[in-house]
Amino acid sequence: MTITITAFERSPDGGKGLARDTRVRWALEEAGLPYAVRLVPFVAMKAPAHLALHPFGQIPTYEEGDLALFETGSIILHIAGRHPGLLPADEQARARAITWMFAALSSVEPPIHDLTTAKILEGDRPWAGARLPLVMDRIRARLEQLAARLGDAEWLDGAFSAGDLMMVSVLLRLRMSGLLDEYPTLAAYVARGEARPAYQRAFAAQLAINAPPG
Amino acid sequence: MTITITAFERSPDGGKGLARDTRVRWALEEAGLPYAVRLVPFVAMKAPAHLALHPFGQIPTYEEGDLALFETGSIILHIAGRHPGLLPADEQARARAITWMFAALSSVEPPIHDLTTAKILEGDRPWAGARLPLVMDRIRARLEQLAARLGDAEWLDGAFSAGDLMMVSVLLRLRMSGLLDEYPTLAAYVARGEARPAYQRAFAAQLAINAPPG
Repeated sequence: MTITITAFERSPDGGKGLARDTRVRWALEEAGLPYAVRLVPFVAMKAPAHLALHPFGQIPTYEEGDLALFETGSIILHIAGRHPGLLPADEQARARAITWMFAALSSVEPPIHDLTTAKILEGDRPWAGARLPLVMDRIRARLEQLAARLGDAEWLDGAFSAGDLMMVSVLLRLRMSGLLDEYPTLAAYVARGEARPAYQRAFAAQLAINAPPG
Repeated sequence: MTITITAFERSPDGGKGLARDTRVRWALEEAGLPYAVRLVPFVAMKAPAHLALHPFGQIPTYEEGDLALFETGSIILHIAGRHPGLLPADEQARARAITWMFAALSSVEPPIHDLTTAKILEGDRPWAGARLPLVMDRIRARLEQLAARLGDAEWLDGAFSAGDLMMVSVLLRLRMSGLLDEYPTLAAYVARGEARPAYQRAFAAQLAINAPPG
């Protein structure tokens, strides 16, 4: 059955791979699943047709036959639960890998997202400069805890899993800020994720849309 | 096998039920599972013994035999996947219910959490008053979309599920702000959640610890 996901017609990041369709593309590539992409123009994001698929008017969405899903975490968990390559077979290890998916989305991404809010949405507000160090320190607090847990391991819990896919994707948002470089073991962890052939294919696929050659 | 969760020795909310152990208690009550609670004093949250269980030094955690989990979303998904009462049997409906769990945690809770940051962590900063309306408007944008999707339905997608449990729990954080009352259908949805006997038992159990009778 054909899998169709949605992506920005033109991503606000200009092809840096930070739009969330890249995360789903990566999961699909790890699982070896072909997929189609429907591009959504910015003006259509909050229109009824797209809101019927995604109540918050965002991308990505996932369609497969009768099934329609939104939320990157849910889409990736759905893929990971039905195809090998993203979750361990052992039931306890599987629960722990899923825990890291939630950790990435619920505990690590919110302070990182706040940096985007501070720099972009509130970048011209009078408090922007004074508030930024507080936002960055809240990110550092999380990165320090994450680096302590990762230690010298290659991945967060045994073999690469959907938990690592999500955590690497979330940490990638920090690259431009320089914050990631303050934690060399986390920077190396992210680099290991980016080096995976499945990530490379996912990144190239979104780049071809957002920064077409010529 | 005994299930043991952790909770604050004394919750910062004084027993309003907003600490995340209430969410896990609620799920365990819906599933009809007995559980033990280990209370963690504030000074022990960031100590090695607790960090071994929860890398971000928070509550709740979940222990069952050899299995140790953290992240409320992951714990509730683990319970819901193994016991009836929290997820539909139909595979597609199940994927949609899980989608609402992620929606609650990834799309609805972050702007709500930002209100806590603005009022408590940054409440004494010079920008606190001027910034608050922006934070509240970002919450309103989400609530409006959520109310549009809920419509006149009782729950988000068919019967009550772990998706509703998580969404109601997240929305409950807004009660004191008055924001929930601006969306009467959402306020009624939250009230339906709170009226469930399983929620009542979960709330009472945390209250007994945090506001013991004189």
